[in-house]
Amino acid sequence: MTKAEEIMSLAKKLAESCSNVMVGSIGNQDYPYVKSMFKMETNGLKEVWLSTNTSSKRVSHFRSNPKACLYFVDPVEYKGLLLLGKIDILEDLESKKRLWREGFDIYYPKGIADPDYCVLRFTACKGNYYHNLKNIDFEL
Amino acid sequence: MTKAEEIMSLAKKLAESCSNVMVGSIGNQDYPYVKSMFKMETNGLKEVWLSTNTSSKRVSHFRSNPKACLYFVDPVEYKGLLLLGKIDILEDLESKKRLWREGFDIYYPKGIADPDYCVLRFTACKGNYYHNLKNIDFEL
Repeated sequence: MTKAEEIMSLAKKLAESCSNVMVGSIGNQDYPYVKSMFKMETNGLKEVWLSTNTSSKRVSHFRSNPKACLYFVDPVEYKGLLLLGKIDILEDLESKKRLWREGFDIYYPKGIADPDYCVLRFTACKGNYYHNLKNIDFEL
Repeated sequence: MTKAEEIMSLAKKLAESCSNVMVGSIGNQDYPYVKSMFKMETNGLKEVWLSTNTSSKRVSHFRSNPKACLYFVDPVEYKGLLLLGKIDILEDLESKKRLWREGFDIYYPKGIADPDYCVLRFTACKGNYYHNLKNIDFEL
């Protein structure tokens, strides 16, 4: 394994092990915003899938500006993975079915087709992984 | 205690109890960025003090664009506090003395006057506190 492959492997491991991810967006008056969200699915480091309320602040941010970052962090071991990319808001039934989980009807009483339920697909273009005082940038 | 006072008190308690805070900035190509940093000092909800390397990415972001957010989160109890505001980069000796802690010479070998050691003073203008599915905006 080359050094770069090793870093990517550690970065993937961190993303997979986190149940939550910090989602960065640009919102009202161009302030940066951060929110912790449940991580639903990952596809390597290239794609991360999340779900939320269509009426939520995050959705309104990403409709105005799709630029996003996702940050997976282990503050105890001082390691973190930042991914930069864009968010697509998906409201087709197939995507909504893909992320639907048992118990979601507490949040979305109308079920999978609830118009207030939607999917956020994040696609990364670059990233940074750090552990202790070392950190490395990479393209995706 | 009014409802608003109660919320502010819960928000302060959360900020005080967190040893780390997620720092949102706007960086290269206007992407949002997030980084976990040690929270050094708070002054109510109005001011939060952090320290970092003068040569760090965060400092270069805030020199170009002082808009920032700080996010204190307890993902287990599903509560979070977002503060929006601006960051001032302080390099005067008094501010650097204020935040200097034992062991900092590992990061800043030249001591308090190390030009690579600086202070970030965050001043909040508004915020949002949530717990479970309830959330409230406030001005500061």
